[in-house]
Amino acid sequence: MADVFSFRIIATDGAARTGEIVTPHGIVATPAFMPVGTQATVKGLLPDAVRACGADILLGNTYHLMLRPGAKRIATLGGLHRFMNWPHAILTDSGGFQVMSLSELRKVADHGVTFRSHLDGTLVELTPERAVEIQTLLGADIAMQLDECVKLPAPRAELERAMRLSLAWAERSKRAFDQAPPGRALFGIVQGGDDRDLRIESARALTDIGFDGYAIGGLAVGEPQAVMLRTLDEVVPALSADRPHYLMGVGTPEDLIEAVTRGIDMFDCVLPTRNGRHGLAFTRFGAVTLKNARHADDPRPLDESSPCAAARTYSRAYLHHLVKANELLAAVLLTTINLSYYQELMAGLRAAIAAGKLTDYCASVHEGWDRGDIPAR
Amino acid sequence: MADVFSFRIIATDGAARTGEIVTPHGIVATPAFMPVGTQATVKGLLPDAVRACGADILLGNTYHLMLRPGAKRIATLGGLHRFMNWPHAILTDSGGFQVMSLSELRKVADHGVTFRSHLDGTLVELTPERAVEIQTLLGADIAMQLDECVKLPAPRAELERAMRLSLAWAERSKRAFDQAPPGRALFGIVQGGDDRDLRIESARALTDIGFDGYAIGGLAVGEPQAVMLRTLDEVVPALSADRPHYLMGVGTPEDLIEAVTRGIDMFDCVLPTRNGRHGLAFTRFGAVTLKNARHADDPRPLDESSPCAAARTYSRAYLHHLVKANELLAAVLLTTINLSYYQELMAGLRAAIAAGKLTDYCASVHEGWDRGDIPAR
Repeated sequence: MADVFSFRIIATDGAARTGEIVTPHGIVATPAFMPVGTQATVKGLLPDAVRACGADILLGNTYHLMLRPGAKRIATLGGLHRFMNWPHAILTDSGGFQVMSLSELRKVADHGVTFRSHLDGTLVELTPERAVEIQTLLGADIAMQLDECVKLPAPRAELERAMRLSLAWAERSKRAFDQAPPGRALFGIVQGGDDRDLRIESARALTDIGFDGYAIGGLAVGEPQAVMLRTLDEVVPALSADRPHYLMGVGTPEDLIEAVTRGIDMFDCVLPTRNGRHGLAFTRFGAVTLKNARHADDPRPLDESSPCAAARTYSRAYLHHLVKANELLAAVLLTTINLSYYQELMAGLRAAIAAGKLTDYCASVHEGWDRGDIPAR
Repeated sequence: MADVFSFRIIATDGAARTGEIVTPHGIVATPAFMPVGTQATVKGLLPDAVRACGADILLGNTYHLMLRPGAKRIATLGGLHRFMNWPHAILTDSGGFQVMSLSELRKVADHGVTFRSHLDGTLVELTPERAVEIQTLLGADIAMQLDECVKLPAPRAELERAMRLSLAWAERSKRAFDQAPPGRALFGIVQGGDDRDLRIESARALTDIGFDGYAIGGLAVGEPQAVMLRTLDEVVPALSADRPHYLMGVGTPEDLIEAVTRGIDMFDCVLPTRNGRHGLAFTRFGAVTLKNARHADDPRPLDESSPCAAARTYSRAYLHHLVKANELLAAVLLTTINLSYYQELMAGLRAAIAAGKLTDYCASVHEGWDRGDIPAR
C-alpha cells in the first residue's frame, strides 16, 4: 500500500528546518522547490528530465486542468500522475489564483467564484467543495483549499474581507476533504496581505481548523521583498511548527534563501521555467541574459562545474544562437539549466541546515551572486 | 586519426543495397535517413535524443548557418559538431535550395547566385567555391556541390539551362574541394527535372568529373510520386554503383521504401520533424492526427510495441491534450516518435536487404499501413 502523508523535521538551524514529507508518491526532501507543470507538463521537458534536475514534487494547476482536458477525464485516464507520466509527488493548487488572474467576468460570492473560461468563454463555478473534488479527481498528493488572493497594495478592509472569506472556505474545504481517499493531504492558506494582525488571525484560525500543512498566500503579488520577508517573520511563528510551511508562488533564488532562513519548507514558482523560455539563465554567478551580443562568440559553458550537464556542455555562443534563432531547444536547455540551479540551491540549503551551517552557506551563495558573471576576455 | 570517407556495400537485393559509409565522425549504416538540423539543432530535441532515435548522421543547412550564426564563427568555436554537441556524422547541403525557396531578390548568374538574406536583407553572394568554403568551415563530413534546383513542372529549356549550370558548378566545386582537409567527401548533384535525357546526361557528366557520392536533386518539388519513381528508375542505373546514392529532400515513409528498392542509400526530409510539430504522428499503422477529438479519451499509446519509449508510454489522450494546448512537449514527443519511426523503417529495410527479403519486408510494412490506425471502441 502507498504511504500516507506525513512530515518530519530532521534538523533545524535557527528558524530554518530540513526534513521530509512522505506522500503516496514518494518522499519530498524539504526545503523543496516545486517546478510548475501548469497544463500537465513542465513546459518543454520530459518528466525524466524534470526528475533528473532533482525535483521530488511538481505543482499542477487546477484552473487549467479543470478547463482542459478536464478533471473527470484525467481521473478516468488514471489520474494526473499517470496522465503526464510523473510517478512522483504532485501538489495541485485550488484554481483560485488563476481564476483571479486569467479568467474574465469573475464574481466572488460567499458560495464560491463564478468566471468565464479564458479558453472558450464557458461560465464555470468554483466552490471550496468543487476545488477539493477536482483535486481529488486529479489524484493530487497534496491539495490546496480554495482561497481569495488580493494584489498588493490593497485597502485593509479589502484584505480583511478576502481573509475572512478564505477562512470560511478553509472550513468548508476541510469538511469536503474528509470524504477524500485517505493518505493525501490538504493545506490551508494564510491570507491577510501585508497586515500583521490579519495574518496572525488567519494563521491561528487555520491552525484551529487543523490542516496537514500551511501555506502563505497573497505574497509576491506586487509588494517589495522587504514587506514579504517582514510578513514571514510575523506569520511563520504562528504556524504549527510540526507541519510543512509552503510559501506560494515564490520566487527568485534570493527569495528562496531568505524564506528558508525564516522557516519555509516548500516553494513553487514559474520563474525558472518562464525565464528559461525567454532566454534567461539562473547560475551560481547570478542571472545571465543569453540574448546579449557578448555571448555570440563565447565558447565557455554557463557553469563548467554545475551538476547539470546542459550547463556544463553547451557553449554560451550556442545558447545565444538558439535564443536569437527562437529555437525550441533554447527553451528546453535553459529550462533544464534553471530548474537544475533551483534544485541545486535547495539541496545546498538542506545540507547546510543539516550541518548547522546555514549562515555560512548563504554567505557563500551570495558571494557567487556578488561576483557575478564574468564576460569573455 | 579520424577515419577517411569510404563506402562499401554489404549486401544487395534487386537494385536495393545495404552498406556503410565511414566518415571522420563515425559509421553511417545505409540506407540512412538524416534528420534535418536546420539551425544547428533538430528542433526541440537534445542531440542524445536524436541519437537514441537511431540516427547516425544529421543534415545541416548551409544557407541558415552562413547567415546565422555564421560559418566563420562556427569554425572558430570548433566546428558544427562541437557547436551543437553532435559527435556523429554531418552532411551539409550547399545552401542553393534555400536560396531559391527562402531568400528575396535572388539572381542566378554563371558565377553564382546573389540574394538578400531573409533575416536582415543583407546582400549575399553564394558561388560554388564559397559553398565549399562554408561547408569546410562548418566541418561537414559530407559536403554538397552548389546546384540550381528547378520546381516542377518546368519547360525543358529551363531544366536544361539549370542542369548545365549545375554541371559547370559541379566542376568548380570539385576543384575548390581539392583544397579542403582530407577525409571528407563531396557529392555531386544530378539535375534535369523530369526529362530522362537531361538526367542521364547529368549523371554521366558528374561521374566523369568523379565525386565521392551522387545525389539526385530536383525531385519531390511538386511532381507526382510516379514521376519521381520513374526518374529514379532511369537515373540510378547511370550512377556509379560503388558510390552512395542520395535522394535529396525525400520523403514520406512510402517514398523511402520505393526509393530504397530502386537503389537509393541516403535521404533527408523535414516531414517527420515538421509534421511532429504540427501534431501528426507517423506509425506502423499509418499517419495519426493527434488533434482529432477521437483521441481525447483514448488511454492507448500510439504503438505499444514500438522501440520508441515515447510511442509506448504516453496515451493518445495525453498527446491530444498537449497538441490542443499548444504545449512544447507535444513537439518534443511527436518529433521523437516520428524520427524513431523513420529510423525503425530504415533499420528494417537494412535488415531485409541483408537477408534478401526486401519484398517480404515491404509487403509487411504496407500491410500495417493498409490496416490503418484502429480507433478506440
